[in-house]
Amino acid sequence: MAAMNEEKAMDLVTKKRKLHDEEESDDKFNNLGNIEIVEVLNDNSREKCLFLHTKISGEDAVVLMEKTPFDRNTMTQLVSEDTTLKETLKNDIYSTYEAQLPHHLNAVKATLICPATEKHLSKYRQQKTFAICETKEMYENVTKPYLQEQKFSIQWVYNILDKKSESDRIVFEDACPKDGFILLPDMKWNRKELSQLYLVAIVHTREVLSLRDLNHTHLPLLNNILHKGMEAIRKEFGVKPSKLRMYVHYQPSYHHFHVHFTHLALDAPGFEADRAHLLQDIIENITIKSDYYQQKSIVFKVRECDGLYLKYKETGYFD
Amino acid sequence: MAAMNEEKAMDLVTKKRKLHDEEESDDKFNNLGNIEIVEVLNDNSREKCLFLHTKISGEDAVVLMEKTPFDRNTMTQLVSEDTTLKETLKNDIYSTYEAQLPHHLNAVKATLICPATEKHLSKYRQQKTFAICETKEMYENVTKPYLQEQKFSIQWVYNILDKKSESDRIVFEDACPKDGFILLPDMKWNRKELSQLYLVAIVHTREVLSLRDLNHTHLPLLNNILHKGMEAIRKEFGVKPSKLRMYVHYQPSYHHFHVHFTHLALDAPGFEADRAHLLQDIIENITIKSDYYQQKSIVFKVRECDGLYLKYKETGYFD
Repeated sequence: MAAMNEEKAMDLVTKKRKLHDEEESDDKFNNLGNIEIVEVLNDNSREKCLFLHTKISGEDAVVLMEKTPFDRNTMTQLVSEDTTLKETLKNDIYSTYEAQLPHHLNAVKATLICPATEKHLSKYRQQKTFAICETKEMYENVTKPYLQEQKFSIQWVYNILDKKSESDRIVFEDACPKDGFILLPDMKWNRKELSQLYLVAIVHTREVLSLRDLNHTHLPLLNNILHKGMEAIRKEFGVKPSKLRMYVHYQPSYHHFHVHFTHLALDAPGFEADRAHLLQDIIENITIKSDYYQQKSIVFKVRECDGLYLKYKETGYFD
Repeated sequence: MAAMNEEKAMDLVTKKRKLHDEEESDDKFNNLGNIEIVEVLNDNSREKCLFLHTKISGEDAVVLMEKTPFDRNTMTQLVSEDTTLKETLKNDIYSTYEAQLPHHLNAVKATLICPATEKHLSKYRQQKTFAICETKEMYENVTKPYLQEQKFSIQWVYNILDKKSESDRIVFEDACPKDGFILLPDMKWNRKELSQLYLVAIVHTREVLSLRDLNHTHLPLLNNILHKGMEAIRKEFGVKPSKLRMYVHYQPSYHHFHVHFTHLALDAPGFEADRAHLLQDIIENITIKSDYYQQKSIVFKVRECDGLYLKYKETGYFD
């Protein structure tokens, strides 16, 4: 989806003009008039975008639309009498308005993929998500048996721990088989921009599958990861602890205990309060009550396509 | 910060018309013509918003602008010949366009805070952030005294509780002065798209400033909010509990206890694990230990401009 070179672009313009002169059929792309909506695949209100499955002359197509960001270079045109206001609400010093900007400052970026395959449609289709508030009984009776049935391979994790792969990427290691861990950059980080810093601490012990297995016997392990991890990152990358987040996912994406270290400036996916558990909180909760994570209800999200969602659906949880 | 009742709105309209007949000075709120830009406080290209420090008739004001999300209810108007396209790029099956939508589908939400204090300016100014792991001693010695020094007005909250504003927007009320609350849509929600559902439960009691003040005596209040809130939302909007998140901010943006209810599909700002505390977790933690939130360390973020950051900086916390 890259820019064409100029020559090719000129060819296309010529070809288009020709077509335009000969027939009107190319007009469909001057507006959205001949497009039929099949399904809203997804939308995102925070990012102001919309993904549609459509049909164009009988062919499947994806239409992506996204509102454009404000441009700092056009501020004086924006804040002018050409931007009109309609008051919608007023309370004390606060008031809100529906504003209409000058046309050219309020374009929408549209992208068309035509013809689109099923893969394109899946790529943009939203998965419905559901919240589960997992009690200890639900963990024992539904989640745990489900996880035991699954045989997700985590050979790649053992390869790291056994130094069969990625050993050149290790930032820090505490080799103790019980309380030790390996710290290395996450795949999502390019090791360049510090504001996107993302590392993972993978523990040597193979006995902790998730948060649910932690108790007071793991406090040395957890404190090790917290303190030695922060120290290694300060030493290696010059990033202070007050710029870091340390957390664990529940449910994790693989069931071998690991801790995420990310920079505060990174808008990290998976840092939502119904997925991320801060390492400091975990340590303190276990100190308060050794079986905190065996007893406590834990809220987490599942997606429609997750096996765990189907298991919970069978139990009637979502009725 | 919120909707007026209809009568007041009508009064204002009449008053405005009168003023308009008499003089032109009120026109400034029909458009952005008489507003002078002092500084771009921040912008966010992902969220398509812009925060400006401005002057209006010599007074400091904050203007917030945010492009509006696409509305699933207006799809057929959007995908029509009224949406015009200008091709910007074409490569294989991909093409991109600059689109112009029908006016009414492409409004911008503008919020005006006038007069604005330095605190308002700081709130919206782009800032470096820092993590603080606040122990109970740090809360007692630094945070609490700081908050007591501050006199941030929450008159708008009392206006809601006293039914002086927004009473027409109330979705549910439990009027008990000790365990009751008012549930109403947050300013950020237009009450239309359910996937963006955002309500706030504001408690009647004025004694709970934040999470730090909660103990077992508040369990009836918290359970009330959880269960009656979920039930009211199911009844009023048809949204099931498994589609909802209920949480509290620490630090909150105003110190009068309130709980956020948002739809799972909403990528809600402020739902990060170092700011949002799930209501279910709060109830369970207090049940485990009545003084959990007085004893526990709590991690939260501060920005460079926050008074609280400066207080902690003075103590040498960030060295």
